[in-house]
Amino acid sequence: MLNLTRNDVAARLLADCVPAPVASFEAFAPVNIALCKYWGKRNAALNLPVNDSLSVSLGNKGSTTRVAFLSDAQADEVYLNGSAVNRDSGFYKKVVAHIDLFRGLVPGCLRVDTVNDVATGAGLASSASGFAALTKALSGLYGLGLGDEQLSVLARLGSGSACRSVYDGFVRWHKGVRADGMDSFAKPLPESWPELRVGVLTLTGEEKKTGSREGMQRTVDSALLYGSWPEQAERDIARLEHAIVQRDFTLLGATAEQNAMAMHATMLASWPPLLYWQPESVVALQKVWQLREEGVPVYATMDAGPNVKLLFEANSTDDLAQVFPEMDIIVPFL
Amino acid sequence: MLNLTRNDVAARLLADCVPAPVASFEAFAPVNIALCKYWGKRNAALNLPVNDSLSVSLGNKGSTTRVAFLSDAQADEVYLNGSAVNRDSGFYKKVVAHIDLFRGLVPGCLRVDTVNDVATGAGLASSASGFAALTKALSGLYGLGLGDEQLSVLARLGSGSACRSVYDGFVRWHKGVRADGMDSFAKPLPESWPELRVGVLTLTGEEKKTGSREGMQRTVDSALLYGSWPEQAERDIARLEHAIVQRDFTLLGATAEQNAMAMHATMLASWPPLLYWQPESVVALQKVWQLREEGVPVYATMDAGPNVKLLFEANSTDDLAQVFPEMDIIVPFL
Repeated sequence: MLNLTRNDVAARLLADCVPAPVASFEAFAPVNIALCKYWGKRNAALNLPVNDSLSVSLGNKGSTTRVAFLSDAQADEVYLNGSAVNRDSGFYKKVVAHIDLFRGLVPGCLRVDTVNDVATGAGLASSASGFAALTKALSGLYGLGLGDEQLSVLARLGSGSACRSVYDGFVRWHKGVRADGMDSFAKPLPESWPELRVGVLTLTGEEKKTGSREGMQRTVDSALLYGSWPEQAERDIARLEHAIVQRDFTLLGATAEQNAMAMHATMLASWPPLLYWQPESVVALQKVWQLREEGVPVYATMDAGPNVKLLFEANSTDDLAQVFPEMDIIVPFL
Repeated sequence: MLNLTRNDVAARLLADCVPAPVASFEAFAPVNIALCKYWGKRNAALNLPVNDSLSVSLGNKGSTTRVAFLSDAQADEVYLNGSAVNRDSGFYKKVVAHIDLFRGLVPGCLRVDTVNDVATGAGLASSASGFAALTKALSGLYGLGLGDEQLSVLARLGSGSACRSVYDGFVRWHKGVRADGMDSFAKPLPESWPELRVGVLTLTGEEKKTGSREGMQRTVDSALLYGSWPEQAERDIARLEHAIVQRDFTLLGATAEQNAMAMHATMLASWPPLLYWQPESVVALQKVWQLREEGVPVYATMDAGPNVKLLFEANSTDDLAQVFPEMDIIVPFL
C-alpha cells in the first residue's frame, strides 16, 4: 500500500469507466486562494496532505484547457498561452504524465492548449487551475462521465491544490485517511459571499529560489514548530466555516491572515530558514496593519512567494485603492 | 506561593545577610546576546522563564553603574549617561523599585549613575547590563557579600535577561522549577572562544511599537505554534553547549540562527501578528544567506527589534566588512 503510484490510484479509480471518446473537449477551472493553507504532505507521491484546507475560487480567473486527439502523432503536443511548450521542460512532462493517468483506457496522442487568465508572476498558482481544467477536459474528451469528487482526486494527483479548483466558491479539501487517498478530495461549501474581494499586489515577478513543493518538504522535515501546524489548521478551518456561515468578515479575514502568517512562520523556523518574503512584502504588510488600525477592515494572506493578497469587502474598495493603486481586484462570486 | 512578589523573594534571599555599607560603589556588567533566546515566562511577576537560554556576554560593552548614599534626600536620584532621569519615567520607577528590593536591609536614598557603553538603538538590550550592574553595585554598596548566583537571581527580578549579564563569556540561564524562582539563575560556561565576533548592524533606530515584554506575552497567549517552542529551545541549548565544547562554529552559528528565526516565527504566528522586522531586516538577512552560499561562514541572530546581529569568526572579518561596511564589530572574549 505504501508504495502506490499515481498511475495505480488512477487505474483503480477509473476501473469501472466505459469510455465514450469525442474528438475534442474544452474546460475551464478557476484559480483558488487558500484561506487555510495546504502545507505539508503525508504522502508526497500522491499529494496527500497533512491537514484539511479551505479556499475560495477566483471567479472567472483561471485556466481554459482544450484537448483534442492527434492523428499519426508520436508524442503529445502542449501549448501554453498560444506557444508550443518544449518537450524537455518540466511543464511538458507534468502534463504528459497527467494524460498518462488516463491513457490505459483510451490510447492516442493529444494536443493540449491551455490559456491562463492570470497575470504571470502575480503569485496566483496557475498549476491548480491548470490541472483542474486539464482533468475536466480529459474526462470530457474520453467521455468518462466522472463525478466531481473523482475529478477532484485525479486533479490532486497532478497538483495538490488543483483538487480545490474543480469547484467555484468556497471549497474545503478533506485530507482523508486512506493510504490510497481515494477519500482525499475537495467539496464545495454552499454559501456565497458576493461582497468579498481579493486584491492582488504584484510586488515582484522574480523567480523564487525554492519551489513550494521543496519548501513544504523542507518545513516538514526540519521545522520543529511545524509540530503545532496541524492543530492550527484544524482550528482555523472550523473558524473559517463558522465565519462563512455567519457572514462574519472580521473572523474570516483574521483567521485567514493568522493562518498565512503561521504557515510562513513554519517556513522561517526551517533549516536553512525559508523566507519567500521580499522587503516589499514587509512594506505591504505594514500598510495592511496600519489600515486596520485606522479602521479599514482588510486582511492579508500570502502563499509560497513574496506577493501579498488582500481580503476585503466591496465597501472598502475605495479606501484600499488609495493606498494600493496598483492592486488588481478580483471578484470571487460573480 | 503563586502570588509571591519580587519583594517577597528578595527578602527571603537576603534574610541572612549582615550589611556592612560603604559610602559608594561602582560596578560594570556586559550586555549579552542570546544564542538560544529567552522567550516566554512561566511567572511574569518574577521573570521566571519557560525555557533555559544561553548567551554570550559582549566583553567591555555594557553598563557601568555607580551608587552612593545621599544625605538628607527625600527621593533617589537617577542619572543615565550623565543626564538626570525624570521621576515620572518608567526607567526611574524601575530603578527605584530595584533599590527597594534591598531597602529593608539598609534604608536611605541613593544616587545612581549609569553609563551605557552601547550605541543607542543598536538593538543591544541595555536593560540586561543595566540591572546586572545595578545589582552588583548595590551588593557592594551595602556590603552584602552576595555570591554570583544570588546576584543573578536579584538581577533577574529587575529584567529577566539581566541574570545572564552578571557573567562574562558564555552563560546559561537555568530556568529552574521552584515557584519562588530561587533556582532560576545563570551560570557561566568555562569555555572561551577568542576568535568569535559579533557584528551589529544598526538598521533603524525607530522606536518599536510593541515592547519585548508585551510581545512575549502576546506570543505565549495567542500563538499556537508557541507550543513547540520549549522543545526547540531545549534542543538548541544542547546543540550550543556541544558546539562550544567542540569549538564547532558551523553548529554554533546555525543553531543560533535557527533559534532566532524560530522565535520570530512564534511572534509572526501570534494575533495580531507581531513583526519586529523592517524591510531592511529582510535585506540584511538575504545578504547573510547569500554570503553563506558563497562560502562565508556567517550567521544571523535577531532579538525583539528590527536589527540584525552577525556571528562570525575573526578570519571572516574582511569578507563581512566589504558587504556590511557600517557594521560595528564586537569582540566578546577580550
